[in-house]
Amino acid sequence: MSSTGGSAGGSTGGSTDTRIHIPAREGRATHIPAGGRFRITDLRGRQCCDLFAFNAHDVTEYASAEHTRVYNGNLFPRVGQPFVTQGRRPILLFLEDNTPGKHDMLVAACNPSRYALLGVQGWHASCEENLLACLRGMGHVVEVPQPINLFTNIPLGPQGELDWQPALTAPGDSVVFRAEMDVIVCASSCPQDIVAINDRNVTDLELETL
Amino acid sequence: MSSTGGSAGGSTGGSTDTRIHIPAREGRATHIPAGGRFRITDLRGRQCCDLFAFNAHDVTEYASAEHTRVYNGNLFPRVGQPFVTQGRRPILLFLEDNTPGKHDMLVAACNPSRYALLGVQGWHASCEENLLACLRGMGHVVEVPQPINLFTNIPLGPQGELDWQPALTAPGDSVVFRAEMDVIVCASSCPQDIVAINDRNVTDLELETL
Repeated sequence: MSSTGGSAGGSTGGSTDTRIHIPAREGRATHIPAGGRFRITDLRGRQCCDLFAFNAHDVTEYASAEHTRVYNGNLFPRVGQPFVTQGRRPILLFLEDNTPGKHDMLVAACNPSRYALLGVQGWHASCEENLLACLRGMGHVVEVPQPINLFTNIPLGPQGELDWQPALTAPGDSVVFRAEMDVIVCASSCPQDIVAINDRNVTDLELETL
Repeated sequence: MSSTGGSAGGSTGGSTDTRIHIPAREGRATHIPAGGRFRITDLRGRQCCDLFAFNAHDVTEYASAEHTRVYNGNLFPRVGQPFVTQGRRPILLFLEDNTPGKHDMLVAACNPSRYALLGVQGWHASCEENLLACLRGMGHVVEVPQPINLFTNIPLGPQGELDWQPALTAPGDSVVFRAEMDVIVCASSCPQDIVAINDRNVTDLELETL
């Protein structure tokens, strides 16, 4: 196994550890073979994780939120259900959820335009730039899929209104997935500190292969 | 103005009409200049329309469901709200809704894998193939964005369950948009006849520039 890390501020290079530390505001990517399992842990609590998964042999195929919603018939997979690609092939299976159970699969990764619209002056780290930096470190230029927003608490109002609430996770809460094909997964510690989803305190995550 | 049409079964070539007829199960695309308005009409009722919009000068930029949800803070734009691209730039403005008000922006375009999983043997027309054929007819190879599913009635259950209900539109119901940049729009008469969204009777649409 090898991993590459990156924030838009710089890449931290490869790693062969099975426990990959993801510093606050950065991303890390790694290969997981078909059948391999991995855990993502919110080390300090209330930290959202943008998760992306690509077919390792063809990165134009990736976990697709809109195809996954149709495949499972619900807004977010439940334990035992898969995430599927644009060709509706399972790419990840949701094995364990050791959290209060609140995740999101409706909103885009934060990117430079998100922070500009929120009034940020100058550069701000973003999950989109973290993804692109990680994949570039592996030699890939990719589309930016809609992420699987782990630990992310965006409740829906009665008329479909979205709200941005702090994550409900406690320190050590985690989720476990199984790769259903050879995948590249990328996890980003969401740098969002303007709206409340990370309780305005961006912290570290861990990606562990099992 | 010129338009190109296509189902995966074949393209019907260009047109300079301001009223573009979209036969059942087929798609049509046309250029709309910034500031131009267009209407999409469900001619016979209960027919879903997959709508896509691309920046005419850079088709890698397109109407993005996941960015639009964040921009507007709701699951589907209301009259007066925009659809935005991945860079969160308005691309279409929702001007008029002359329907019961039920549209969808959660589910992927139907594609060959959708029909295979529904048990269809052999080829079946799909919105994804209609889009690709229309854009190919204009010289473009594009990503398949998540569509704006006009007239599409997919209610959400209390736990986020999706249901596939017949469209609520009556003959002649329509929506009007304004292009916020020079766009290529593509509208597909959704060929779905296995689940109930088109009342299992796929019919024609009209795309009219105003």
